[in-house]
Amino acid sequence: MESASQSGRQATPQASRPLEGIRVLDLSHALSGPTCTNMLAMLGAEVVKVERPGVGDDFRHYTEHAGLPGMSLPFASANMGKKSITLDLKNPAAIAVVHALVERSDVLVENFRPGVAAKIGLSPGDLQARNPRLVYASISGFGQTGTLRDWTAYDHIVQAMSGIMWMNGNPDDEPMKVGFPIIDTFSGYMAVIGILAALQRRERTGTGDFVDVAMLDSAFNLLGAAVPTYFYTGEVRGRTGNKGYRLVATAETYRTANGYISIGANHQHQIEALCDVLHCRWLIADPRFATHADRVANHEALRTALAAIFREHNGEDIEEQLAARHVPVAIVRNLGQVLKHPHFEERRIFLEGELPGSEQPLKVVGPGFQLASGPMSAGAVPTLGQHTDEVLASLGLGDDAIAALHASGAT
Amino acid sequence: MESASQSGRQATPQASRPLEGIRVLDLSHALSGPTCTNMLAMLGAEVVKVERPGVGDDFRHYTEHAGLPGMSLPFASANMGKKSITLDLKNPAAIAVVHALVERSDVLVENFRPGVAAKIGLSPGDLQARNPRLVYASISGFGQTGTLRDWTAYDHIVQAMSGIMWMNGNPDDEPMKVGFPIIDTFSGYMAVIGILAALQRRERTGTGDFVDVAMLDSAFNLLGAAVPTYFYTGEVRGRTGNKGYRLVATAETYRTANGYISIGANHQHQIEALCDVLHCRWLIADPRFATHADRVANHEALRTALAAIFREHNGEDIEEQLAARHVPVAIVRNLGQVLKHPHFEERRIFLEGELPGSEQPLKVVGPGFQLASGPMSAGAVPTLGQHTDEVLASLGLGDDAIAALHASGAT
Repeated sequence: MESASQSGRQATPQASRPLEGIRVLDLSHALSGPTCTNMLAMLGAEVVKVERPGVGDDFRHYTEHAGLPGMSLPFASANMGKKSITLDLKNPAAIAVVHALVERSDVLVENFRPGVAAKIGLSPGDLQARNPRLVYASISGFGQTGTLRDWTAYDHIVQAMSGIMWMNGNPDDEPMKVGFPIIDTFSGYMAVIGILAALQRRERTGTGDFVDVAMLDSAFNLLGAAVPTYFYTGEVRGRTGNKGYRLVATAETYRTANGYISIGANHQHQIEALCDVLHCRWLIADPRFATHADRVANHEALRTALAAIFREHNGEDIEEQLAARHVPVAIVRNLGQVLKHPHFEERRIFLEGELPGSEQPLKVVGPGFQLASGPMSAGAVPTLGQHTDEVLASLGLGDDAIAALHASGAT
Repeated sequence: MESASQSGRQATPQASRPLEGIRVLDLSHALSGPTCTNMLAMLGAEVVKVERPGVGDDFRHYTEHAGLPGMSLPFASANMGKKSITLDLKNPAAIAVVHALVERSDVLVENFRPGVAAKIGLSPGDLQARNPRLVYASISGFGQTGTLRDWTAYDHIVQAMSGIMWMNGNPDDEPMKVGFPIIDTFSGYMAVIGILAALQRRERTGTGDFVDVAMLDSAFNLLGAAVPTYFYTGEVRGRTGNKGYRLVATAETYRTANGYISIGANHQHQIEALCDVLHCRWLIADPRFATHADRVANHEALRTALAAIFREHNGEDIEEQLAARHVPVAIVRNLGQVLKHPHFEERRIFLEGELPGSEQPLKVVGPGFQLASGPMSAGAVPTLGQHTDEVLASLGLGDDAIAALHASGAT
């Protein structure tokens, strides 16, 4: 599989690197911070990841892994293309190295618990005194201010607190966690937006900024109009299961002869096309289902009728036919099913890079968008401390000084 | 309530406007495009929103509204602080106005179906010929390239296609849509990242870019390591309901005497604190639950024991006590319950602005992060075509030329 890894490297010269020249110092661990700096790295920034000597980011040892020590798949997926340097942040010599790195960095990202950075001499004030152009981003569960500041958060805790669990699942069941780490990942992307906005401001003002990202705050940005609607009307959004947002049965999910399918027929011409493909024109001849208002009023009857019809059809056949008629449709796929679709090979949205210790390259999700200026690339996953000496040397330290740092336990 | 609206305006002078001076031409409608430009507007960009004469963005007439014509709450929530100009894009005189606006714009955002913009003379090539510095962002369901390009998408269709529904809900139930428009909103934020990255590149190269955002592509960015894990191991992630990611019963959700509560006790000291607060030290004395490995091996027994214990406790009392012991915890709140928390007043993460036709201001979600350089602001929701004359005049058109455009039906 060496060739795939090689081809990943060969693509780099023509790659688009919109953030080329931006230097990021990454003190973060686990998922939200590394997701942020992962995006910055894919966009071409240089990311130096600081890890604890000997152990590294806890995520290296996460339960789900592929048998490679210190290279769990969750860690590897979020840390490609970064440089790893080990520093013991309890050691003053290590803090001096961080200070030196800050002087040449554009961005710093950390997700310690609020107050920890200040205790070890790494507050925004400490660091912007050394580099006023520094954009300093902190990601925390509940923010750097406010009553909840010191509470500890995980993804599902924020899902519980934010109303997300309350809005997810069937109305009669218990509130349901979203089935993937939506808040960890999303708050990392919100930090990217804050950082890029602050860099844009720096172009104009010459000064950096402090970006305070809270997992809880960012949760509300995913909810569309639910929060403003509550503030304006007092209406609290409940769980609606698989019902469509407009509560019409032609925009829901049904069981077919072989799996589930989701339909989004909101408009009259889409509903007519749906009935053509399902051979049920009698349905729209029924006065209970003739107009949008009728269909909303007789939701349950329409849903029951459609459920019986869908059960008789092969999902793959009707998906193809409905899509050709421009009726929004998709079979409910699992990841294995969707990722085999040729669409993704054509769009090249996944990127490959080297996974040390493995002959098989690791294929990861790219930045989530394409740029006409060129493809992006992921790079190799760093082993713990792989770039310590290289980074220290780039600060002007000679071999003896580097050896002394190693001997002191600072690295 | 005029005073609240006034105070929103008074805050503007000291506000941080990181994107000040950036001009955005917004041809988008519904939710993903407007979510993108909403963020750009809150960050200080000037956003000119082009709408169809007479009707405007369909979202103005969305089913959920507050009784204000053309001002549904979903529309209002995503369009504060923008300028509204009406243009009939089937009219050549209107296209000429778009071309003139493009010449002075930094960013264009559209979410027509792929191919539509090119048909009306607004392809990236057409527009970058007039302004090579233009960053042109297209948001679509499945992207501008690939087999699925012409398929029609709604939020829940992409949830079905992407594996999101498959991963959400209880293992034995049917796949479950996430209960809010996660893809519509998230793809809009991904477009923001693409645009800001392209602007950063423009600082260095002097040229714009084309950003191709697909709702389907962006879905994978929310999933953490699930996609790379599938590529590497072939493992397809299924539904795990409310089980924690590490599958330990001390990091799950339980029913209390008065509602539900989520707990995230992964580490030994957290589990000991949990047992103190719940008065069940006997639990960790039980050899079945003594170590992490024991607890994973005896998951069901531990879950059953904890479920019986939590039922006897008042959620609010134990939330407070567990938080004080730094055990990750949150009562499962609905939006009404969480938004009343004083934490948000203290952090000022919600912004207020004017809602025309209403004496009550509209309070919306801010950009999702705080900047030390100052607060951000939301601005008023525009009425349809409110800024048509102002924007046309800013292009150098005189009163007669503007009147002629109105008379021709172009506006």
